[in-house]
Amino acid sequence: MRFASFIFDGVSQALKRNSMVPKVVVLVAVSGGGLIAYSESQSDHGASIVRSSETEPKKKKLVVLGTGWAGTSFLKNLDGSLYDIQVVSPRNYFAFTPLLPSVTCGTVEARSIVEPIRKIIKKKNGEVRFCEAECFKIDPVNKKVHCQANAGSNLNGTGEFVVDYDYLVIAMGAKANTFNTPGVVEHCHFLKEVEDAQRIRRSVIDSLEKANLPNLSEEEKRKNLQFVIVGGGPTGVEFAAELHDFLTEDVGKIYPNIRDLVRITVVEAGGHILSMFDKRITAFAEQKFQREGIDVKLGYKVTKVSDKAITMVDRANTVTDLPYGMVVWSTGIGTRPVIRSFMEEIGQADRRALATDEWMRVQGLENVYALGDCATIYQRKVMEDISAIFNVADKDNSGTLTVKEIQDVLGDICERYPQVQLYLKSRDMRGLVDLLNDAEGNERKENRELSIEEFKKALAHVDSQVKFLPATAQVAAQQGEYLAKCFNRMKKCEEKPEGPLRIRGTGRHRFRPFSKIIEKMEGGLLIHGLDLSPIPNINNMAHVVVHMIQMS
Amino acid sequence: MRFASFIFDGVSQALKRNSMVPKVVVLVAVSGGGLIAYSESQSDHGASIVRSSETEPKKKKLVVLGTGWAGTSFLKNLDGSLYDIQVVSPRNYFAFTPLLPSVTCGTVEARSIVEPIRKIIKKKNGEVRFCEAECFKIDPVNKKVHCQANAGSNLNGTGEFVVDYDYLVIAMGAKANTFNTPGVVEHCHFLKEVEDAQRIRRSVIDSLEKANLPNLSEEEKRKNLQFVIVGGGPTGVEFAAELHDFLTEDVGKIYPNIRDLVRITVVEAGGHILSMFDKRITAFAEQKFQREGIDVKLGYKVTKVSDKAITMVDRANTVTDLPYGMVVWSTGIGTRPVIRSFMEEIGQADRRALATDEWMRVQGLENVYALGDCATIYQRKVMEDISAIFNVADKDNSGTLTVKEIQDVLGDICERYPQVQLYLKSRDMRGLVDLLNDAEGNERKENRELSIEEFKKALAHVDSQVKFLPATAQVAAQQGEYLAKCFNRMKKCEEKPEGPLRIRGTGRHRFRPFSKIIEKMEGGLLIHGLDLSPIPNINNMAHVVVHMIQMS
Repeated sequence: MRFASFIFDGVSQALKRNSMVPKVVVLVAVSGGGLIAYSESQSDHGASIVRSSETEPKKKKLVVLGTGWAGTSFLKNLDGSLYDIQVVSPRNYFAFTPLLPSVTCGTVEARSIVEPIRKIIKKKNGEVRFCEAECFKIDPVNKKVHCQANAGSNLNGTGEFVVDYDYLVIAMGAKANTFNTPGVVEHCHFLKEVEDAQRIRRSVIDSLEKANLPNLSEEEKRKNLQFVIVGGGPTGVEFAAELHDFLTEDVGKIYPNIRDLVRITVVEAGGHILSMFDKRITAFAEQKFQREGIDVKLGYKVTKVSDKAITMVDRANTVTDLPYGMVVWSTGIGTRPVIRSFMEEIGQADRRALATDEWMRVQGLENVYALGDCATIYQRKVMEDISAIFNVADKDNSGTLTVKEIQDVLGDICERYPQVQLYLKSRDMRGLVDLLNDAEGNERKENRELSIEEFKKALAHVDSQVKFLPATAQVAAQQGEYLAKCFNRMKKCEEKPEGPLRIRGTGRHRFRPFSKIIEKMEGGLLIHGLDLSPIPNINNMAHVVVHMIQMS
Repeated sequence: MRFASFIFDGVSQALKRNSMVPKVVVLVAVSGGGLIAYSESQSDHGASIVRSSETEPKKKKLVVLGTGWAGTSFLKNLDGSLYDIQVVSPRNYFAFTPLLPSVTCGTVEARSIVEPIRKIIKKKNGEVRFCEAECFKIDPVNKKVHCQANAGSNLNGTGEFVVDYDYLVIAMGAKANTFNTPGVVEHCHFLKEVEDAQRIRRSVIDSLEKANLPNLSEEEKRKNLQFVIVGGGPTGVEFAAELHDFLTEDVGKIYPNIRDLVRITVVEAGGHILSMFDKRITAFAEQKFQREGIDVKLGYKVTKVSDKAITMVDRANTVTDLPYGMVVWSTGIGTRPVIRSFMEEIGQADRRALATDEWMRVQGLENVYALGDCATIYQRKVMEDISAIFNVADKDNSGTLTVKEIQDVLGDICERYPQVQLYLKSRDMRGLVDLLNDAEGNERKENRELSIEEFKKALAHVDSQVKFLPATAQVAAQQGEYLAKCFNRMKKCEEKPEGPLRIRGTGRHRFRPFSKIIEKMEGGLLIHGLDLSPIPNINNMAHVVVHMIQMS
């Protein structure tokens, strides 16, 4: 679809430039023949045949790091014919991560939740190259990324190589967060990658086999059959539920003599499991777990993991040792070392993820974009720009704003600063005029004018509505799609900007900012009657709910 | 079926002992009701309800080591109610090894070729226990086996335990034979276990991904895409054929730019690949490989494997270095360390596998049996027993044998020494009388008598027909079935021996020897017009042939 309309756009533009071309040509170009000619021209990289400019420069080099939700969604939506595209990722597949907990117990096979990147790439127009390697250094000064494949791939044996870029898209995700707890890396399983899920699967069976050995005391058996999940978020809860089903339904039949010694414990530092969801979901999950015999330890913080036991303290500082057979650690995400170094280099050392603007551009860098779990969109605050906003709105440079002047820029302000609209919504207001009323406490007449001080006062509390987007599969996928569409229309939007008015510059932004799109999504979800904002992991959450319905 | 007939046997015996029971009881017992009662009685280990003896002693402890072809076949055929059975194996599944080469390229999924041992055990009468552990020491003096599970399974953390036995069945298989070639263990893949096949699968893809990295010279790419198979036996050839199909059919589409650099080389020290098969199969395979572009290096011996290249010498002692991306080593089997130590302890240090008699008993030990790849049946030679045979045949102690006397023991001799029959067959003779003619050179009259010297002369060349059975899945499976049937009828056959006359003892052997059964099998295979004896790996062979037909 995108394909056909792209050609149609091209043809329409050609038509505008050269208005004596008879209409019949357009019809021919849009019909099948044009498509065939186009797709055939791909094989010899002849995409320029369709685009009319003969003087077009060499394609820009676009490097994409990562093939998770963000990277894959970006690739899927990108028009491959516009750039010279190089993808670098340590995994040559995309994994549907919300189903990872199901892989741990064999409910779903690992091969069912992966999609080869080369299969995705093959469907693209143009040539997209893929390298199975890991980026270990980003050099924004020289516009290069340093990568390393498995050792021994080239004859000097280091496996290192360098890739140049014009545009860089960083979608490298995050790593599991251990909060520097001693022993976690050595003794715990994580549940972020397909290999993690497969390792957990083997480890569950190993625990059962170990408990089944002869000459073991009951204490030893119980130790081997103690499964611990640290972290009561969606991943941990989903895994606990899957494990419970597996242990009661299948293991009972296969290992009947150890069935009654199995125990699952969920350790959560907070006061509730699934605390990021609606209270009804939390309560349902906690009651369900209690009925099923899953032990939920709330308010316990793990301080150490040894090869035999995990040590935790409760809120009264009482220390407990829990001997275990297997531990899965899922307490959220942390920053990857390569991102950490990059952040230090570009002066973002004090943040937890790469800060980008609302167009996904890494702050302070040209042509470097970051999305997904490795990035956070830094929403500009109204108060930081209040004078500039005032000046833009004050077209006649009178030093005061009329309601008319405000209404003229209102659309742009709401687009650029979505917190304004959220604030209005949270107060049940219909427009900025209501906001002015609110600040003043009485109804404002159309002809009254606002000084900059009054304007500041009116917008004073708006920034309280600035939200950070949750690090979820859904946000990452939407960011990838958004950015791909920007890249697809880069040229067009440079000529005809679509975004809001520039507050600290002239003219308009090229694209509408991303935050606008998320807001729409949240609205959509609210329709279903549950307040799911902020959405921690919508895919996982849906899965947890489905799972619990199945369990009950 | 076996189940029903077992009950029927029991009922028949009861009937014989108690002849006034009316016939109608038999009918009821054989119908469904009897079966249900029987199977229900399993849950409380009440198998003795069916067997009539109330004074039966405690069940003998039977320990089975290994769950490969031999061990699993033994378990499947064993009547679990007769013994207190403990199975110890490092793998809790049985793997259909002839399909391993197909797992390496994803033609078959690993899960499709494995069967959980617990599933097999569950179908048995009586209770069979399984431990996932590896036996590391067999102590025949104290009748114990020392085993080790993964570390940390008990609280002292060693994972060691000891199991007592009354009967021990050793079916631990063999390990890959490296001929002590340096670097093989470090740098080569083997293809004996499911994990090996999975590792090879990942390694093949890794090689392709490595060759696909940017900035590699063509030499580096060729190195990464050089797949080497050492050993031109059925496993190596089958793997080479699978890999070839995968690389030409699938890889060409996914990695089009490196397709033409891929090279498969089979290195074989002998003069031909598949040399253990009929010459027509060898010739077909060699021609096929040549047509397909698989490089077969005959007469090359690998002397060293480094991380970059394998070093080999041809028959003219020319040394060649071949840089590789991946090597699979499949040059046959060697003795496992635990079997090697055991053999040294029982005075078999000079052998390559555990020597057993024709009833699978380890030579020199009571109640220890060995089968499959870890064992070899040592067929007694006629010449070693010739005086004893003469004495057994010479019933009237006249010091000479009549033709009649020879004919009386002929059946037993042929059963005990199958080489006699093979020798007769190889010379197109119909019976022992012909053999006597042959020795003397002229026709023998019925009434002439043979001295011991003449008897020796007649049988002088018979032992040239002694054959060792090939180390194959089929032989192992048949040995397992044979031994299980012996164990099932142990009691019955002690009372009523079924075997041939004891030559160096009195009475009869309890069971017919195993070699008799193999001879029948070979006869069956000869019917198909191909001389497949000695059969190296009949399952693999069939698969190779099928594969080649598919390829052509």
